[in-house]
Amino acid sequence: MKRPISFEIEKRGAGLARAGVLKTPHGEIKTPAFTPVATKASLKGIAPSQFKELGVQGIISNTYHLFLSPGEKLIEQAGGIHKFMNFDGPIMTDSGGFQVFSLGVGFGKKVSKFSSEEMFDFVNPTDGFTKSNIAPVVFDEEFSTSHGKLAIVDDEGVSFTSHIDGSFHRFTPERSIEIQHALGADIIYTFDECTSPTADHEYQKEAMDRTHAWAKRSLAAHRQDPAKDASQGIYGITQGGRFEDLRIESAKALADMDFDGYGIGGSFSKQDILGILEVVDNELPEGKPRHLLGIGEPEDIFIGAAAGIDTFDCVVPTRKGRTGCFYTHAGQIIIRNAEFKEDFSPIDPDCDCFVCTRFTRAYIHHLFRTNEMLGPILGSAHNIHFLTKLTANIREAILNKRLGAFRDEFFGTYQI
Amino acid sequence: MKRPISFEIEKRGAGLARAGVLKTPHGEIKTPAFTPVATKASLKGIAPSQFKELGVQGIISNTYHLFLSPGEKLIEQAGGIHKFMNFDGPIMTDSGGFQVFSLGVGFGKKVSKFSSEEMFDFVNPTDGFTKSNIAPVVFDEEFSTSHGKLAIVDDEGVSFTSHIDGSFHRFTPERSIEIQHALGADIIYTFDECTSPTADHEYQKEAMDRTHAWAKRSLAAHRQDPAKDASQGIYGITQGGRFEDLRIESAKALADMDFDGYGIGGSFSKQDILGILEVVDNELPEGKPRHLLGIGEPEDIFIGAAAGIDTFDCVVPTRKGRTGCFYTHAGQIIIRNAEFKEDFSPIDPDCDCFVCTRFTRAYIHHLFRTNEMLGPILGSAHNIHFLTKLTANIREAILNKRLGAFRDEFFGTYQI
Repeated sequence: MKRPISFEIEKRGAGLARAGVLKTPHGEIKTPAFTPVATKASLKGIAPSQFKELGVQGIISNTYHLFLSPGEKLIEQAGGIHKFMNFDGPIMTDSGGFQVFSLGVGFGKKVSKFSSEEMFDFVNPTDGFTKSNIAPVVFDEEFSTSHGKLAIVDDEGVSFTSHIDGSFHRFTPERSIEIQHALGADIIYTFDECTSPTADHEYQKEAMDRTHAWAKRSLAAHRQDPAKDASQGIYGITQGGRFEDLRIESAKALADMDFDGYGIGGSFSKQDILGILEVVDNELPEGKPRHLLGIGEPEDIFIGAAAGIDTFDCVVPTRKGRTGCFYTHAGQIIIRNAEFKEDFSPIDPDCDCFVCTRFTRAYIHHLFRTNEMLGPILGSAHNIHFLTKLTANIREAILNKRLGAFRDEFFGTYQI
Repeated sequence: MKRPISFEIEKRGAGLARAGVLKTPHGEIKTPAFTPVATKASLKGIAPSQFKELGVQGIISNTYHLFLSPGEKLIEQAGGIHKFMNFDGPIMTDSGGFQVFSLGVGFGKKVSKFSSEEMFDFVNPTDGFTKSNIAPVVFDEEFSTSHGKLAIVDDEGVSFTSHIDGSFHRFTPERSIEIQHALGADIIYTFDECTSPTADHEYQKEAMDRTHAWAKRSLAAHRQDPAKDASQGIYGITQGGRFEDLRIESAKALADMDFDGYGIGGSFSKQDILGILEVVDNELPEGKPRHLLGIGEPEDIFIGAAAGIDTFDCVVPTRKGRTGCFYTHAGQIIIRNAEFKEDFSPIDPDCDCFVCTRFTRAYIHHLFRTNEMLGPILGSAHNIHFLTKLTANIREAILNKRLGAFRDEFFGTYQI
């Protein structure tokens, strides 16, 4: 049966780098590509009618957020996420795994471990928990006092409280797929367990094994709905944390399942993951597309593309942009700084986006200093364009067999 | 000498209504027209490249705000306000009078009166104040405790503290014109004293006389700079509060001065001013354009246009829009309300703006409920378009001699 997602490699570069075309039911993405994050079915400050101008070929949206508000049923009722947000291009939805753990547990904070027995005190026994079916889990140690965040993992799935209203919910692989079917994106992801960056090898291995089991269950749940299986592609997410042996094991395990593509996940410092991308991509089927989940600043995109990543997403560019940190070919600038008050040059003289061709640093400095809405809008737009254009240029470089030379040129001026 | 501003009446309607064309150095405005407020050289959430699509022919910006930040010198250095904000169409700047009084004194709050002698305690004697040259003034009674707001009027001008950082400044008619020359708008305004809505006839008369003297001085200051006089038109502002006799006196006094057009000002409830617009406009030279300052919701525009007003501005549409209150042909709707959660119809089925043709109420409800930036952007855009289109339709109705019929049609569905 013809799959809804297909991928063609147009040209191979040095090492694992490749330029290709990812075909989806809502159009193509020429890769490598930066596909920005529209967390709640909205790219911050940007209407879908502006996507083309900003070089946005596709986006990724968040299952966890859309599940909580407005709810997947409403989006299904609207005719799916494309109609809901009025974007007719390729859309992915992640599985919610990352958000359940990061928002539920307080990712990135100091964590501590709780035993299964300790965990039992937090769960609702009517949900079917027993002391033996709850896995030990790492928690933000302040969860019970500061914000009541809570996520409890067991072999069946994860129970968690909403970061919005504290309401209690439960995701299983089957439930995540059910929600993603209702949302109706072109590409959906398997439900995975995101561990803490400080998790040890033992816990990481345990979580990875659970992630593999959940990947199988996610795939089975997807296949069970032939209409959805025919209209939505599914990517498996590999995990394994910062441990190379686990990364290889995870990539092999996922490669053995019949996915349309692969997401490379992980809740840990990006230095760790980038170093082992080649290891992972070497194990994944060469002809399938690969998405690097949640990592995509300029230096990451160069490393990722060289290691065979096809698509990237990251909230950092829009978050930085709307708070006044702009990418330029010389590095990042904080536009509020006094040095830009009388600077009548564009944000980036080497950029052709509408922000750089129409407005000066002095004007945008003024917008941020006086809290005008237009400032964050321009910041979001410019940074998105900067990354889509950079990735398009990386693609061109791969097609022309000069990725290394282009990287040297870029970092000849760009200061991290 | 040919004036930079000219006005042609194309057609007269019933009463004082007229449709015309206002010509400025940066293009024409077909009147009646709604010219939205870009307080700090930015229309909230909207880039100038979108103005045309939203029916925005021209805008008005605020001298007081731009003086405080980024400062008129910087805008002059940028090549003037048109280049600074990248809008090549007609721009007006108000004189700062309204803001000095409303932001300085706390307009709309409970006010109390201070004698000249009492006032002297607040001023800096090195600024040339004596007990006799300070006029009594109404103050927000909490000014000294809650926010340190302070404005002190004397016959020469007004001393006030910034609402941003409390720094002390002084505007005179000459200084206001000097700032507006640096800003470089197509139409500038005379410096006026805006009184409290509760001011009595005696104080209102005194303030009005001062406003007339300041109008003469503003005009003289403008004429003294032949280059600016040739490139910027100047409007005189009539005052008189809620008192018909003063309104007539003020209109006559201003009519006797050679302005390019007239602003009708006032810091009081809009019910009062709309009732006497006809009285004022009857006294003003028929061939000169008239701008109603700061008042422009749908019902006001109908009343104003019928009374011979040519252009309108108001911050309410953008303020309402970005907080989720949308104009529709059935009245205003609060999009956050639960009733719109599953409403897949457009904001206003009778509107052809990009918000209504592309997005549903359910989606915009979701954007506001989840604090997505795109919500306020769409609100600002739709409401601006609603008013520019309404005013364009009023113009059409005047041209077709059916303003009354159009008003009846509009209010047949629109609930205030």
